[in-house]
Amino acid sequence: MKKIIFLILILGVFSRNAFSQTTLLQEYNLLPWPKEITKNSAKFIINSGVAVSIMGDDSQERVRNATVNFLRRLVTRTGIFIEEGFPVANDRGNIKITFNSVAELNIQTDESYQLHVSDKEIRIHAKTDVGAIRALNTLLQLITHDATDYYFQGADINDAPRFVWRGLMIDVSRHFHPIGVIKRNLEAMASVKMNVFHWHLTDDQGFRVESKVYPKLHQLASDGLYYTQEQIKDVVAYANKLGIRVIPEFDVPGHASAILTAYPELGSKDGYHYAIERFSGVFDPTLDPTKDITYTFLENLFSEMVPLFPDTYFHIGGDENEGKHWDENEEIQKFKKQHNLTSNHDLQTYFNIRLEEILNKLGKKLMGWDEIMTPNMPTTAVIHSWRGENEGLPKGGSLISAAKQGYQTVLSNGYYIDRMLSIKHHYTVDPIGDVVLTPEQRARVLGGEATMWSELVTPRTIDSRIWPRTAAIAERFWSAQSVNDIDNMLSRLKTVSFDLEELGITHIRNKAVILRSMTHNQDIKSLEVLSKICEPLKIYKRNKDGVEYKTFSPFSLFADACVVDAEDALKFNNLVSQFIADGGMEVQNALLDYLSIWSNNHEEFRKLDLNPKTKPLENLSLNVSEVSGLLFEIFQNREVSKKTISEINQYIEALKQPVEDVEVVILRDLNYLLNYAEENFKVSE
Amino acid sequence: MKKIIFLILILGVFSRNAFSQTTLLQEYNLLPWPKEITKNSAKFIINSGVAVSIMGDDSQERVRNATVNFLRRLVTRTGIFIEEGFPVANDRGNIKITFNSVAELNIQTDESYQLHVSDKEIRIHAKTDVGAIRALNTLLQLITHDATDYYFQGADINDAPRFVWRGLMIDVSRHFHPIGVIKRNLEAMASVKMNVFHWHLTDDQGFRVESKVYPKLHQLASDGLYYTQEQIKDVVAYANKLGIRVIPEFDVPGHASAILTAYPELGSKDGYHYAIERFSGVFDPTLDPTKDITYTFLENLFSEMVPLFPDTYFHIGGDENEGKHWDENEEIQKFKKQHNLTSNHDLQTYFNIRLEEILNKLGKKLMGWDEIMTPNMPTTAVIHSWRGENEGLPKGGSLISAAKQGYQTVLSNGYYIDRMLSIKHHYTVDPIGDVVLTPEQRARVLGGEATMWSELVTPRTIDSRIWPRTAAIAERFWSAQSVNDIDNMLSRLKTVSFDLEELGITHIRNKAVILRSMTHNQDIKSLEVLSKICEPLKIYKRNKDGVEYKTFSPFSLFADACVVDAEDALKFNNLVSQFIADGGMEVQNALLDYLSIWSNNHEEFRKLDLNPKTKPLENLSLNVSEVSGLLFEIFQNREVSKKTISEINQYIEALKQPVEDVEVVILRDLNYLLNYAEENFKVSE
Repeated sequence: MKKIIFLILILGVFSRNAFSQTTLLQEYNLLPWPKEITKNSAKFIINSGVAVSIMGDDSQERVRNATVNFLRRLVTRTGIFIEEGFPVANDRGNIKITFNSVAELNIQTDESYQLHVSDKEIRIHAKTDVGAIRALNTLLQLITHDATDYYFQGADINDAPRFVWRGLMIDVSRHFHPIGVIKRNLEAMASVKMNVFHWHLTDDQGFRVESKVYPKLHQLASDGLYYTQEQIKDVVAYANKLGIRVIPEFDVPGHASAILTAYPELGSKDGYHYAIERFSGVFDPTLDPTKDITYTFLENLFSEMVPLFPDTYFHIGGDENEGKHWDENEEIQKFKKQHNLTSNHDLQTYFNIRLEEILNKLGKKLMGWDEIMTPNMPTTAVIHSWRGENEGLPKGGSLISAAKQGYQTVLSNGYYIDRMLSIKHHYTVDPIGDVVLTPEQRARVLGGEATMWSELVTPRTIDSRIWPRTAAIAERFWSAQSVNDIDNMLSRLKTVSFDLEELGITHIRNKAVILRSMTHNQDIKSLEVLSKICEPLKIYKRNKDGVEYKTFSPFSLFADACVVDAEDALKFNNLVSQFIADGGMEVQNALLDYLSIWSNNHEEFRKLDLNPKTKPLENLSLNVSEVSGLLFEIFQNREVSKKTISEINQYIEALKQPVEDVEVVILRDLNYLLNYAEENFKVSE
Repeated sequence: MKKIIFLILILGVFSRNAFSQTTLLQEYNLLPWPKEITKNSAKFIINSGVAVSIMGDDSQERVRNATVNFLRRLVTRTGIFIEEGFPVANDRGNIKITFNSVAELNIQTDESYQLHVSDKEIRIHAKTDVGAIRALNTLLQLITHDATDYYFQGADINDAPRFVWRGLMIDVSRHFHPIGVIKRNLEAMASVKMNVFHWHLTDDQGFRVESKVYPKLHQLASDGLYYTQEQIKDVVAYANKLGIRVIPEFDVPGHASAILTAYPELGSKDGYHYAIERFSGVFDPTLDPTKDITYTFLENLFSEMVPLFPDTYFHIGGDENEGKHWDENEEIQKFKKQHNLTSNHDLQTYFNIRLEEILNKLGKKLMGWDEIMTPNMPTTAVIHSWRGENEGLPKGGSLISAAKQGYQTVLSNGYYIDRMLSIKHHYTVDPIGDVVLTPEQRARVLGGEATMWSELVTPRTIDSRIWPRTAAIAERFWSAQSVNDIDNMLSRLKTVSFDLEELGITHIRNKAVILRSMTHNQDIKSLEVLSKICEPLKIYKRNKDGVEYKTFSPFSLFADACVVDAEDALKFNNLVSQFIADGGMEVQNALLDYLSIWSNNHEEFRKLDLNPKTKPLENLSLNVSEVSGLLFEIFQNREVSKKTISEINQYIEALKQPVEDVEVVILRDLNYLLNYAEENFKVSE
């Protein structure tokens, strides 16, 4: 077969420019982008005869499961009535999978694979079954169509990840997330080749695992919202089939209000009324690191939990302990003196070292947030780097310094998706960047994790906070550093985002659900228009100081329907940049279309029978409408009066005030347009 | 407080006319409609101080759980930031719940309650905790609002159900439905006061429960899609908290392909290759009722299952056994002669009686589909009446005759929601109708069950097949027979349908999901328009003879996006009736609006980049557009040519051919309009 070869060489020095010149990135909606891909002209037509053979050992559960899921998704996407819904015997499949061995999941797991699509046959080869299932996800992304056929695009792919740790953390303490939420997010993770699910199981707001040894933990400290041990095992097995490791986190000694609600005798402050926390923030309840019963408790608890979580890594949190109750406790002060612990940091290191001994005995490696990296902490611990500029520390956090000091380390600074920052922001954070590391140091940089803290997310909204942004982060962890063209990534991400909906992720569909709920099932058109230019407040400005929202407060508000990277705002802002740069009429017309939609939108809004949830948006809607109408006229007439300029400025000022926990994200560009008009059009009095 | 009294007297003879005269049914969106309701002028404003006290024993799980759910839904719906997210101590709540006792769930459970809403206080009183949770669901339906406040509408309600058995059956064999699907449907059932979940767990297409005694059942006969015993217990406990009983069904001796895949030695035909069935229909594999091992197997299996399902009733299926393999088996023929069993019916009765003995020993009451009602069957069995006109039997099925013969009985004939018939159709089926029964006979008519057979439904579509139709059926089971005004029910149902979305039911949101999937995320406007005048083929015309669709065939097609009671078709057809009756201009304009939308829609459709899933709809879209355009012109010009009449007839004929498993449901009324034009407008050559 004649092949057109466009071998993409992935080199560290590959420039952004070079990429934008290649057509391949535009021809395939692959994400994460593979290590090597060669185009060929084949078209493997998808018809009823599609059949998959797992060569050799087809009883292997991981590949078998992935194959069945692959066939179900293929059928859903194409509408093709296939004959064989399950793997077929060796010689009969036209998609053939081979692999050498069944992998244990750990940081050494080989996830590489080769994939060849020709006209009549597709071959997948991998060293391990995990590599094979990664290949099936790539293959799903090669499905395309014309008016008459669906087909797999011809390609030869040789792929392997850049980092061994590509994680997503979900906090199930602040808001509990049922098994269904976890499972669909595991599926989504696997679809973009992520391989670590970090399960933040305990915090001030709830202890979410059944304990048979300390049953008061789930009985008194979860409001009945916890996972049974059977459910934990089920999720771990489910993740394993998807090639995803599960790292549990039991956050101690701080973030411990829930534990202390159940067992106040472990607390640092006698007579304190410990209770499940309903607000957000950093709280005082802390385990007492000087009492033997604390270690007995943790050893028993960890011993009970370890069989549920087979992975070697075990996260003990260790973050944000301000030690207020330690300072207030004379016995603890005495203990510090006796043991020559001069600071609370020292005391916490003492605590962490004792935990490490416990976990070592249990065959586990201790992992903790970067606060645990104190001078005396053994380098057998794993540093989870989270603090950075936002916390008054250097950008990029402690990752590189941890790796240089001999710790294995994982980066979350820059991947805090709960901060509601843009895709672009997260995508441009590279774990290593320009830093030069020795091979040993480099090996210690395991990878990164997006962190979904759940103060402000419920099962209805969590998907729209995780996706599609986390898919871009997944590419950062899997693909070469040189794969960094943002526009191209955004274009591929659009398809991926939609594929996530096919998997059951609710990030697209639940916007309409919330808007219908807000209006009690009226026509939501006008709110949809507004939601595409508004974003939820960023960087913890929503829920300031953690005391606006309780865990049971409403998350069915306009802010919950809005998402980061508001669709029309992004497009509009791009158009404005383009227009300012070259002022073409086509671009101007596209801009006017937006202004016209927004200008007319308040008329639609006014048709709503308002209620206490929609009423506060009335002024926002009106102001957007007025300012858009004025700008529309200016550009129509190519003339602007000083009075209008002043009016527009007033509307923009008014719109700068956040309403209902959202911000309008077209204001800067409306201003640009106004400036353009002042400079280029006739200005009248 | 001065009260305006509109006491609704619910009498058997209450006429439809009398109802439409009352305003109360229009003032409250209550569904099912309560037994007695008195309006009062109170408004209980919902603010941050809303708090619920459970008087007396507040540790009781059922009411506590319902209270927390009530508060969560109240907050979601109103956006109010309440202070107290959990029940508060006795004297502090402004919503006070009292009940006398905690109920066991069975057919004697008292579900009555009284509910009084005044300006500052709401009181719920019930004999049992189950009555109290029914009241909380009524209270949620009393939430309404103006522009500034949400409030509970004043009312005094005294309520109790008409039937003790108000069920929904879900078939999880043809398509497996995960725990999340079951739980959200249980919540939905509870919201309309249904109290029986019938779980059809086994059939030819899969055995869906883990068995530790016969593990091959779930290992070989489920494709890995089954519930663990822990999950079953979890669902049963979840249902119990909602006041819902769970009746398991193990379908024998027919519908047994899955069982025989695992244990072929129990089959009636030696050497037959038993395998999980992928198609739909009635199949030959049948347990051998003459072998002792069959009864040993069933006794062991039932003994294992009985502790999982505490309810007294235990469903053994017993339907659609044609006995083909029995006829072909000489040993079975011999056995029949030895035991004087002249027909296969007799043989099955022999089998059923042995099963009844087994279940009696286990403390259970045998329930079966109406085929089990043979002359020798003891009246201790419960008859589940399903066959009727569709199966060549009298309308209304065997229910009345069973009750007269001394059997307890439950009606499903008329409530087969998988047949895709209208809400109206199901709502007008009354279990008893005009039949006069003695009190003893009446007591044996326990109630009814909607049946969701799952040949053509997946987790993505099942909710839109169950809801909102089943809510109308729920009213039929709960409310007086005299509550039968269809238009009024439809108006209340609209609100209920939307409240179901709040609960997580996906019947509204998943239409857009499927249409986005069909178009690969293009603008779905044109398909939405078509989907509102198309319905999936009815009464098993889709999947004719069960061989079009395999269990793994696509259910992401246009037919899956369409629902019964297509929204615009219903409205249009009503307008046409109105127009034919009185020919007003306002109605005519509303009709023209629809014709204009449909006429213009093909232009939108043509903008789609077509694919193999959307391409087959092209002609449908075109024909709808053409016929609508022609009719629009006729009504504009009040003139019609013979040529146009002939063209319109041709388009309508073409549209009568089902496309992509849907039918266009405005054709009859388009024809009415054409007839009207011929009779009333100028007809030219």
